[in-house]
Amino acid sequence: MADFTQEEKEFFMAEALREAQLSLQKEEIPIGCIIVKDGRIIGRGHNAREELNQAIMHAEIMAINEANQTKASWRLLDCTLFVTIEPCVMCSGAISLARISQVIYGAANQKFGAAGSLYNILTDERLNHRVEVESGILEKECAKMMQDFFRQRRKNN
Amino acid sequence: MADFTQEEKEFFMAEALREAQLSLQKEEIPIGCIIVKDGRIIGRGHNAREELNQAIMHAEIMAINEANQTKASWRLLDCTLFVTIEPCVMCSGAISLARISQVIYGAANQKFGAAGSLYNILTDERLNHRVEVESGILEKECAKMMQDFFRQRRKNN
Repeated sequence: MADFTQEEKEFFMAEALREAQLSLQKEEIPIGCIIVKDGRIIGRGHNAREELNQAIMHAEIMAINEANQTKASWRLLDCTLFVTIEPCVMCSGAISLARISQVIYGAANQKFGAAGSLYNILTDERLNHRVEVESGILEKECAKMMQDFFRQRRKNN
Repeated sequence: MADFTQEEKEFFMAEALREAQLSLQKEEIPIGCIIVKDGRIIGRGHNAREELNQAIMHAEIMAINEANQTKASWRLLDCTLFVTIEPCVMCSGAISLARISQVIYGAANQKFGAAGSLYNILTDERLNHRVEVESGILEKECAKMMQDFFRQRRKNN
């Protein structure tokens, strides 16, 4: 598992926030994700469900697909996934299936989070892969982007 | 929610088994899936993780992607998903996110199943979508395909 300094964690989370910004520009729920191996970004993703008409196209799924392509392998051993918001059930399952070692997320998702809030998929001893989880990196910035989005959407409806 | 006769359920599960056969031909874990709306198959999928080098490419994900494309929408309301083996955590999350109404599976997966075995994702009252779940359709045929595959793999190793 990679051992990042606080500065490195904030650097990579800022990259995930740049991805979230891409969702925002398309009026999608703003969540961004990057995957890092050996200090290098090997996958990037942002929520694009509406744009692509794909139910599964969350930030994490897009990033995992790209990292699988970069590595020419479905196994993402020794990789760290940075995501602005706590992963949902589907994405936590995908992270586990991809054998990702470590997840660092910004802000919790009390309604749908499956990495501590509703479920603890990533640390479940019954599954055949365990993931190290850390949270709270650039938490305010990550949460604010979501809050601003939903506030704006309520105003428009 | 669609109301299938026993004969219709077995007909559609046989179609899912044909998909599983495609995985088997590629030496992948043999799981197949189809999605039905108004009596018509709008998505098909089979496990293709090794072939495509994509961690997420389970049968259900491939079928959901195809159904999303057929409908030009991420919402699969009033659709029934037939799958030979109980969905895992990722696929159960994806089924919920796609707003699928009903899941009918063949055989349970005691190790990874999230539609009753390890988790009950599809009927969780805390999530914002609930899915009707039925199991046991062509159960023996669905289970046997998996057992034969793993028996053969152990023999080859």
